[in-house]
Amino acid sequence: MDTRPIGVFDSGMGGLTAVRQMIRLLPGEDIVYFGDTGRVPYGGRSAETIVRYARQDVAFLRSFDLKAIVIACGTVSTTALSVLRSENSIPVLGVVEPAAKAAVAASRGGNIGVIGTKATIRSGAYEAAIRALLPEAKLVAKACPLLVPLVEDGRVRRGDAVTERVVEEYLSSVKAAGVDTLVLGCTHYPLLRDVIGDYMGADVTLIDTGEEAARAVAALLEAQGQLNDVSRKGERHYYASDSAEDFAATAALFLGKDISDRVERVAIENY
Amino acid sequence: MDTRPIGVFDSGMGGLTAVRQMIRLLPGEDIVYFGDTGRVPYGGRSAETIVRYARQDVAFLRSFDLKAIVIACGTVSTTALSVLRSENSIPVLGVVEPAAKAAVAASRGGNIGVIGTKATIRSGAYEAAIRALLPEAKLVAKACPLLVPLVEDGRVRRGDAVTERVVEEYLSSVKAAGVDTLVLGCTHYPLLRDVIGDYMGADVTLIDTGEEAARAVAALLEAQGQLNDVSRKGERHYYASDSAEDFAATAALFLGKDISDRVERVAIENY
Repeated sequence: MDTRPIGVFDSGMGGLTAVRQMIRLLPGEDIVYFGDTGRVPYGGRSAETIVRYARQDVAFLRSFDLKAIVIACGTVSTTALSVLRSENSIPVLGVVEPAAKAAVAASRGGNIGVIGTKATIRSGAYEAAIRALLPEAKLVAKACPLLVPLVEDGRVRRGDAVTERVVEEYLSSVKAAGVDTLVLGCTHYPLLRDVIGDYMGADVTLIDTGEEAARAVAALLEAQGQLNDVSRKGERHYYASDSAEDFAATAALFLGKDISDRVERVAIENY
Repeated sequence: MDTRPIGVFDSGMGGLTAVRQMIRLLPGEDIVYFGDTGRVPYGGRSAETIVRYARQDVAFLRSFDLKAIVIACGTVSTTALSVLRSENSIPVLGVVEPAAKAAVAASRGGNIGVIGTKATIRSGAYEAAIRALLPEAKLVAKACPLLVPLVEDGRVRRGDAVTERVVEEYLSSVKAAGVDTLVLGCTHYPLLRDVIGDYMGADVTLIDTGEEAARAVAALLEAQGQLNDVSRKGERHYYASDSAEDFAATAALFLGKDISDRVERVAIENY
């Protein structure tokens, strides 16, 4: 047992899809979350800027005494993971390896699609991780730059004509490739699960990167004997680089509960 | 004559629509442009964060000895203009007053629409400026949060099904209100002039805020005897907070020419 908190961060709100799964799987763990809402989105920025921002995000989280860090952001996981690992002595988990493992396990024919931000797809990180496990995999990858703005604007529901049109445009080539498994390579995308699932059809397994990252951190802590007792009531604290009120209002949608008394603002550029 | 440069800034690339007009109207002027591409977009952020970022943008520009500052950003002009004016002894021009003046002059029936980012529409600044000139104006305002992501993604052309669908959705209520004049209250929007113009119809006058701001700075400099001779060849220098290469590549679309040898990166969080 190790009661130090787990640090989790994302460019904005998307990482809360991982936090939600962590709360479900790891109810006894304390969590410190940072969402860089003052600089979201990361996905269209240069690799150099993404690395610089990610270092500041981690420096802030490490002002707490953590037992592990979860990068709940596809863009940072695909662009800055190795740098962050080399600079931190505690475990740093990204979303790529757990999602790649889940995709390979789920895929019947090895025909796997990957969607993500521009930076994520440019990195080729998901494809490399999948091929390391399944060299004969047939892969198709597609950058979907408008999906994060749509999610951040709350346009996630079935029947939203714009969202459905955008999803159809991005996924038509992925669908035509006949994939049996699709990696939602950005932690914002599970919010679009209904629209994406409707378009791809029930035969295509969707891999939720936040959920797989939560499973991976649970397995790691268990293996290291650092898991808290499930009867312990874990505490969660949230930090954002833009307005705490705005963060709390949107977080309710992601987490399914009110956290307004547990959100604070942080001046991330000072880290 | 005053050969000090004019400082111009925007959250990202949009302000280049104003720069293009300034180059046309004021060929003898030196211009220093800053685009905060590392933190774009501003339009969905809190007023407090917008003011903080805008102060840093101005602090960087004032590391040059300027004769005037142009806020080539609808969001900053509507949210932070009075703060910036109170803190700077040189003239600070926003896009709101020039656009309001142009809209009132262009409108036949005083039935005027305003579109902009969430922060811009929340501020009510365009409506207030128009009413100050035309108290009986009939106004309709609409926030269009997806238009900046669409422009930054380069999806500006006629025939882009997603852009046309988004424009139709945002503008249907504005069109139904029977406006004769529409203020494009964000310097990104002139890139969408074709799509917006097609939807609104030829009878609706579109007001380009960047163009009006360029006219206003020309008038101000002339009135103060600070205008450079038109035979002088003005120099332009560009700065961005993300990759200089990425800025130069996109800037070519906005300016219609290659500026790759005149772009530098700046660490804006240090200002």
